[in-house]
Amino acid sequence: MSDKAKSGAQWACREDIGEALYGFVSTLFPYCRSLTGSGVRQTLSAIRALLPELDIHEVPSGSKAFDWTVPEEWTIRSAWLESPDGTRVVDFEDSNLSVVSYSEPIDAIIPLAELQPHLHSLPQLPDAVPYVTSYYKRSWGFCMPDRIRRGLPEGDYRAFIDSSLKPGSLSYGEFYLPGERPEEVLISTYVCHPSMANNELSGPAVATYLARWLATEKRKFSYRFVFVPETIGTLVYLSRNLDALKARMVAGFVLTCIGDEGDYSYLSSRAEGTLADRVARHVLRHHTDQPKTYSYLERGSDERQYGFPGIDLPVCSLMRTKYGEYLEYHTSLDDLSFVTPAGLSGGYHLARQCVEYIEANELYVATTLGEPQLSRYGLYPTTGGRKASDEARLTLNVLAYADGRNDLLAIADRLQQPMADVVAAAAALKNAGLIDTRGSRTTRNRDELRP
Amino acid sequence: MSDKAKSGAQWACREDIGEALYGFVSTLFPYCRSLTGSGVRQTLSAIRALLPELDIHEVPSGSKAFDWTVPEEWTIRSAWLESPDGTRVVDFEDSNLSVVSYSEPIDAIIPLAELQPHLHSLPQLPDAVPYVTSYYKRSWGFCMPDRIRRGLPEGDYRAFIDSSLKPGSLSYGEFYLPGERPEEVLISTYVCHPSMANNELSGPAVATYLARWLATEKRKFSYRFVFVPETIGTLVYLSRNLDALKARMVAGFVLTCIGDEGDYSYLSSRAEGTLADRVARHVLRHHTDQPKTYSYLERGSDERQYGFPGIDLPVCSLMRTKYGEYLEYHTSLDDLSFVTPAGLSGGYHLARQCVEYIEANELYVATTLGEPQLSRYGLYPTTGGRKASDEARLTLNVLAYADGRNDLLAIADRLQQPMADVVAAAAALKNAGLIDTRGSRTTRNRDELRP
Amino acid sequence: MSDKAKSGAQWACREDIGEALYGFVSTLFPYCRSLTGSGVRQTLSAIRALLPELDIHEVPSGSKAFDWTVPEEWTIRSAWLESPDGTRVVDFEDSNLSVVSYSEPIDAIIPLAELQPHLHSLPQLPDAVPYVTSYYKRSWGFCMPDRIRRGLPEGDYRAFIDSSLKPGSLSYGEFYLPGERPEEVLISTYVCHPSMANNELSGPAVATYLARWLATEKRKFSYRFVFVPETIGTLVYLSRNLDALKARMVAGFVLTCIGDEGDYSYLSSRAEGTLADRVARHVLRHHTDQPKTYSYLERGSDERQYGFPGIDLPVCSLMRTKYGEYLEYHTSLDDLSFVTPAGLSGGYHLARQCVEYIEANELYVATTLGEPQLSRYGLYPTTGGRKASDEARLTLNVLAYADGRNDLLAIADRLQQPMADVVAAAAALKNAGLIDTRGSRTTRNRDELRP
Repeated sequence: MSDKAKSGAQWACREDIGEALYGFVSTLFPYCRSLTGSGVRQTLSAIRALLPELDIHEVPSGSKAFDWTVPEEWTIRSAWLESPDGTRVVDFEDSNLSVVSYSEPIDAIIPLAELQPHLHSLPQLPDAVPYVTSYYKRSWGFCMPDRIRRGLPEGDYRAFIDSSLKPGSLSYGEFYLPGERPEEVLISTYVCHPSMANNELSGPAVATYLARWLATEKRKFSYRFVFVPETIGTLVYLSRNLDALKARMVAGFVLTCIGDEGDYSYLSSRAEGTLADRVARHVLRHHTDQPKTYSYLERGSDERQYGFPGIDLPVCSLMRTKYGEYLEYHTSLDDLSFVTPAGLSGGYHLARQCVEYIEANELYVATTLGEPQLSRYGLYPTTGGRKASDEARLTLNVLAYADGRNDLLAIADRLQQPMADVVAAAAALKNAGLIDTRGSRTTRNRDELRP
Repeated sequence: MSDKAKSGAQWACREDIGEALYGFVSTLFPYCRSLTGSGVRQTLSAIRALLPELDIHEVPSGSKAFDWTVPEEWTIRSAWLESPDGTRVVDFEDSNLSVVSYSEPIDAIIPLAELQPHLHSLPQLPDAVPYVTSYYKRSWGFCMPDRIRRGLPEGDYRAFIDSSLKPGSLSYGEFYLPGERPEEVLISTYVCHPSMANNELSGPAVATYLARWLATEKRKFSYRFVFVPETIGTLVYLSRNLDALKARMVAGFVLTCIGDEGDYSYLSSRAEGTLADRVARHVLRHHTDQPKTYSYLERGSDERQYGFPGIDLPVCSLMRTKYGEYLEYHTSLDDLSFVTPAGLSGGYHLARQCVEYIEANELYVATTLGEPQLSRYGLYPTTGGRKASDEARLTLNVLAYADGRNDLLAIADRLQQPMADVVAAAAALKNAGLIDTRGSRTTRNRDELRP
Repeated sequence: MSDKAKSGAQWACREDIGEALYGFVSTLFPYCRSLTGSGVRQTLSAIRALLPELDIHEVPSGSKAFDWTVPEEWTIRSAWLESPDGTRVVDFEDSNLSVVSYSEPIDAIIPLAELQPHLHSLPQLPDAVPYVTSYYKRSWGFCMPDRIRRGLPEGDYRAFIDSSLKPGSLSYGEFYLPGERPEEVLISTYVCHPSMANNELSGPAVATYLARWLATEKRKFSYRFVFVPETIGTLVYLSRNLDALKARMVAGFVLTCIGDEGDYSYLSSRAEGTLADRVARHVLRHHTDQPKTYSYLERGSDERQYGFPGIDLPVCSLMRTKYGEYLEYHTSLDDLSFVTPAGLSGGYHLARQCVEYIEANELYVATTLGEPQLSRYGLYPTTGGRKASDEARLTLNVLAYADGRNDLLAIADRLQQPMADVVAAAAALKNAGLIDTRGSRTTRNRDELRP
């Protein structure tokens, strides 16, 4: 782990997960994903190799999803642009970013001036191939480094794209892990960008390994992982599952851009202050340095759908460097050198820590009226004196707020203490019978006291 | 418009209203207004010349208004003070401020020393005639520049006031403009000060021209303009209309001191945070420089009555320089040189902007579940890419908060955007069928989705 | 009164109470108090000499108090530690702090090395005898100045403690003063520390003299004073009176460490914002310089029990220098030189001012709709003019918030005015019939107005 990543987060690196995550990102990187088609299916198959229980759903083109319609399936076989002298100045073989996603087929000789509207490049990043899509308007185009574009000689070019847009289906994956309770935590990530590493594959990789870890754990909550094409896939998923999600979801997280070594960040749900928001803020505050917090107004990924009026699901986003906040975003520079094992490991631990704290969170009620005699429970020094009362203070504070209104996370925030310490104190109190999840206190105490 | 006024507000000067307002103030200026009497009636008649539908009410002396009683009507014909050598050192002919309002009649020879308690002047403004009243205690007095007072020789003066206090009536004007809805916006201003320009005539002038403009507009809300003697007139009006006002008023504004070129200002309603407060604060924040905000504790005009416990109407005050905050206040220096066409025009536009935003305000609900496919509605660029998502952001943000809880003004404040832009975005969304004032969304979407 | 105490509080020193308080502290100082036993009873007897109606309760050892059990009664007759040469290096005769409270009896010859775990001293305060207890674990020990301990020669020591732990009872005192209303204010303080002045006797002394003063006053509220051993005594008291306390208590105060000359301080109730908290904060803000405010997280005295979940009584603590915040705390240096007449007088006035404001507090409703005509009530100058409206502003502001929701204390805080001024204004308004505790307003006014 680099010094930067080390200094950026305080959670113990509990396993050498970074290399595994990076390896999985590397495996998925070459596939030419788009909203639909073989790239998405290759990606979901690779995830299923690690999560055999993954359900892969196919939703036919033309299906409705609220206001949207599942588009035709896009297939691309090859594409290139030949300069007047026959040189291939762009070739899909070299980079699947070099063709505008959802380009319709073409094979035509076009003078440079007429070709220009179909070319995309970034003057400010002259060596990068930009990522451009045209999902919902029939069009075609090539993306290339601005340095090459500027050197193109005048003359007639041959533009060739061997693609097809035909009825097919949209694919998405869903992985469900039942827990003790039917209430669910949602992890949502997307699988629709071609060869880009942070803004695409970091999310599925972290989600996959988070699911693998959770599958081996005792779980209080149930977990639902969805791997969907961004926006349309999320809307398809929501349109088919909204009532169930609203009935069961306690917290949800969109994982995106979570594999670089930048500062950790979080984007609020629209509702703000949900359990997902509270735990994300707590983890960032206590486990990372210089975390960044973004409001819902700065949203740009699938939290847009989860928070939409009427959907109103408690979903925030977890990230390292937010989409749009790094220069390499949506270009060929967001590649396997931009994400790192350390960066991915940090992102994984960010998400995992949130999950662990949600699991550990509980609403307790003190079982005694008045402070218990802590010394009887091994929770208090038996010899008094000047500083003795300080020693059991955290335990007493957790107890003092175990009032059936403040959950452990709220208590941790009230005490400005790390959740882990509060959870440990609560475990000791629970073990001693001094707090309970049921409100049995009054009866017990009052019965004792009345002769 | 002067540079100061120009720099002070950003609304477009949509018409050359300043000169008209100033002309009307000049017309009204000479009348000797008081709580009752011919000056008030002359003023209301002049207003009715511009608002023919103005109802003028006469309320007999002795009528009860909550805790108050309509006083006798005061008539003054002439008044002067003669020095020992027969010079008229004060003459009502020269300034109607020179007699204490509601002075009882007198004709007596009085040595200077005994006269002094009946003289009023301002040492700190030696050339100004102060404005003094004695409505509810029988008394008499003269007001004069301190410079003259200091030069008065010893000796016997003749004090002459030809006035009468007799049963009569209190006059007030009311102008009602029905709109599509019975809910009302109140504009309240006062007509009881003699020849002073900002602290009196700026309010009636702006209110009159606001009513003239509104009469030509399509109105969602109904509007009620009241031109009343301050305090007693307002209480008379409230005591006769309280239940109806409470049932129908959505927002109200007291217009006072709204014609000088000082910074724009606002004084909160007692309840704070009403629609009137929200729109006034929004307009000040987005349309003026260095606006001033006053709390209800700094009140001094008719918002005192509108906010009183049990009245509890949502009324705030709109001003340029607040009463009491300028040196010329309540003196002869608050004259036709203190208000200006530019100052009055700015005040008019302040009030009009508040009205326009109240008219434009609406509570919308998104009609889709999940974001709509904006490109289908001409609301989103069809070609994606790095910055494409920024372009429709305002529209998307307005939509994202169209949840049936946040009205457009709340959304504008949430987004820290000018209401005008939010209204424009909402209009486009409404036009596209993506938001609606009725909550028909769920049904529409869910029906579509269930086969 | 010292300069420091003078500068620290602005209330008038209404009586020469400081000397009386100091005298009473001096009387109580020598008694060897502990959780139980003769020292507590001597203290309660001395209090009863000043408050003849004091009820002294005896609760048998073994009685249950929620999670606790009343311990056996501790009696100590003598104790000393002899060095190898027969010198008494510690003697209970010299200081009742020199034996660990609740020490079991011992008479044994012990080499120094084995004795060390039974010795307590403070290296950082080499001349102080620390205060140490072992209430709930059988043990014994001596406390001594660290300077003496370090000089102890090697060799065999004779440790002698003539004490007994036998079934007996826990003693507490309760003093009730009925008022016009059954609703109660609680004053709680503790009587279980041996010879220490600020952290023990300042509280009972101030409480006793507060009760004596209140007994001579007309009281709106009833008052309950409890003098209890800290923690166990409070729990005993609560366990026997909880339902009645919850039904009747409007505010409560723990008095502790309230006799030194340090800055005034306050520790919040767990609920925060109760009447007790509001009045304490108001008094500190308006009557003291540099007051200190502590959160419930910094609690350490009986507010721990009063605020515990399920107890939930509105009790905060009043102090001068908070326990644990002064070096002398819990040592022999917290003696009769640490508290002073001036310090005790200040603490007394702090508590008394809180009580006076609670007595003066009331929830009023304006009896008029709209402002009354103040001049009719002698509450407003009858001659108007530039500054006339300023003069009755406080009265008008109190009236303007007399809306049946804001009590006088809330109004004082809203106006940022001292409660005393607000109370005076309210008294004038009440006297004039302009506010009332009953909501008779609407009927009166509306009947007047309808012909």
